[in-house]
Amino acid sequence: MPEPVLLVLDADPPPRLGRLAGRVAVRHTDAAGLAARLPHADVLLVWDFTSDAVREAWPGDGSRPAWVHTASAGVDRLLCPELVDSDTVVTNARGVFEQPIAEYVAGLVLAFAKDLPGTLELQRARRWRHRESLPVTGTRAVVVGAGPVGRAVTRLLMALGVEVALVGRTARRTIHGAEDLDPLAARADWVICAAPLTPATRGMFDARFFGLMQPSARFINVGRGPMVVEGDLVDALRKRWIAGAALDVFATEPLGPRSPLWDVPGLIVSPHMSGDTVGWRDRLGERFVAMYELWSAGDPLPNVVDKRLGYIPGTDLNE
Amino acid sequence: MPEPVLLVLDADPPPRLGRLAGRVAVRHTDAAGLAARLPHADVLLVWDFTSDAVREAWPGDGSRPAWVHTASAGVDRLLCPELVDSDTVVTNARGVFEQPIAEYVAGLVLAFAKDLPGTLELQRARRWRHRESLPVTGTRAVVVGAGPVGRAVTRLLMALGVEVALVGRTARRTIHGAEDLDPLAARADWVICAAPLTPATRGMFDARFFGLMQPSARFINVGRGPMVVEGDLVDALRKRWIAGAALDVFATEPLGPRSPLWDVPGLIVSPHMSGDTVGWRDRLGERFVAMYELWSAGDPLPNVVDKRLGYIPGTDLNE
Repeated sequence: MPEPVLLVLDADPPPRLGRLAGRVAVRHTDAAGLAARLPHADVLLVWDFTSDAVREAWPGDGSRPAWVHTASAGVDRLLCPELVDSDTVVTNARGVFEQPIAEYVAGLVLAFAKDLPGTLELQRARRWRHRESLPVTGTRAVVVGAGPVGRAVTRLLMALGVEVALVGRTARRTIHGAEDLDPLAARADWVICAAPLTPATRGMFDARFFGLMQPSARFINVGRGPMVVEGDLVDALRKRWIAGAALDVFATEPLGPRSPLWDVPGLIVSPHMSGDTVGWRDRLGERFVAMYELWSAGDPLPNVVDKRLGYIPGTDLNE
Repeated sequence: MPEPVLLVLDADPPPRLGRLAGRVAVRHTDAAGLAARLPHADVLLVWDFTSDAVREAWPGDGSRPAWVHTASAGVDRLLCPELVDSDTVVTNARGVFEQPIAEYVAGLVLAFAKDLPGTLELQRARRWRHRESLPVTGTRAVVVGAGPVGRAVTRLLMALGVEVALVGRTARRTIHGAEDLDPLAARADWVICAAPLTPATRGMFDARFFGLMQPSARFINVGRGPMVVEGDLVDALRKRWIAGAALDVFATEPLGPRSPLWDVPGLIVSPHMSGDTVGWRDRLGERFVAMYELWSAGDPLPNVVDKRLGYIPGTDLNE
């Protein structure tokens, strides 16, 4: 049996695959070279998970890799109908980003409650102005997206004493179905988007939705940018329909210097960093190497994405 | 038996004591009038807990109140040797500030780990600059001060996955003694001061102490300002002995506009607000009224301060 071919859609820095030396022929490509190389690959590692190249290069003639792994939690940039309909297994980087993102969200919730942005602004002005802050324990959150990230966010906010409702596509055990979202959002202090980008979630946070929320409530997006109608969020903040928001993801990334989002009152903008703790790239590489070893031994792969849903479905909060 | 006299050292807004109407003669005073009124009071409510008036007015002739209650956690501004040696019972506002302060500390820890101040600064400059952040789970904290505030901080950080060592004056069960502080601080990512101000703690965080800490570590003070030698902390930050600090309390409050503390790199300055969540003054008043009812019924008072120690000693983390 010839050496299997592992094709890497590269990003800088490249993955450390030294542990696979001698067991697999590693080929590197950029987006432009992907289509020509796909028919000759057994496995595709999508190391540049910010690229749309796979979705664009996948349709076409010739053989296709039996397994595609992406170094991200979301698979929205990857999936095209031809890949969904194929026998190819798609896996993601579940396990690397969940806890960092949960901590990031908890940090934002506490920063809003304690008005840390206001404190830093007053400090720059050398002004001592005592304010009353908000308790976090006993407040109510809705976490939208019942995948691994949403479940980790839910568990950590619960540890802070927040009453959390976790909303997925369909109701199951400790998870609410999408039909519960509106009434839950209407009484929440925090609405947190940690959902995958799918046709059903694209644009779901719009003027109608922000209009449901309480004027004292805050919205946080650590999922994918296109789930939010950004203009509607800006309007909602300017009209004070809601008290604040934090976006870590955007319809277009990176955000250009002329984007109107940089200086909306009450809006915290961060550069898609919520999941990226020191060493994250190494952990992504190690995770792939471990999965490759299972695959080459013929063992079942973990983290298999349901391609029709666009994520790994879960059935319970603590799963 | 004549109506007991409740003397209130006032602050604005005054306490709501309507529930005590008809059962106690309420007299109000400012700092200047306190000495003359003390001999005629059965109970003293120190509503202006930022004042040194009690410590100054207490020594002298005549009768003294049998019970002094302060609307604060710390009693450092209150105690003088004559009050310590007297039979007067001193109680504090345990139960009002602990959870808010714990949340405030958790918010600072997460803000440092996720570089929220850096994010807000880049946002003002309209610059997209991805950075790697730090995980909080698995980091190590030392909480100095094993009173109710220190214990609440410890429990909440533990809920975030932080490995916390709680240090009190003397070792007991889940609490380390003061002799363990240096070695614990030398390996900590976070050193948090939540201790009472006593002769033993005044000035304890000085150049020697900051020199022990790791260059990557951060220091947070939510106790009392005079425990920190502020000039030494500024030096430690400027020389990068430590990576950051947050002060909510200061040797002199409020901090004037010309204080050098406002613009030290890596230092977050906030206006003694960590414990003050919306409605805190009402809760302080309600707490006192409930305690007054116990006192007038002859029942034992909760929250009795050990006047020689200067705080309410605890024996266990979960007490």
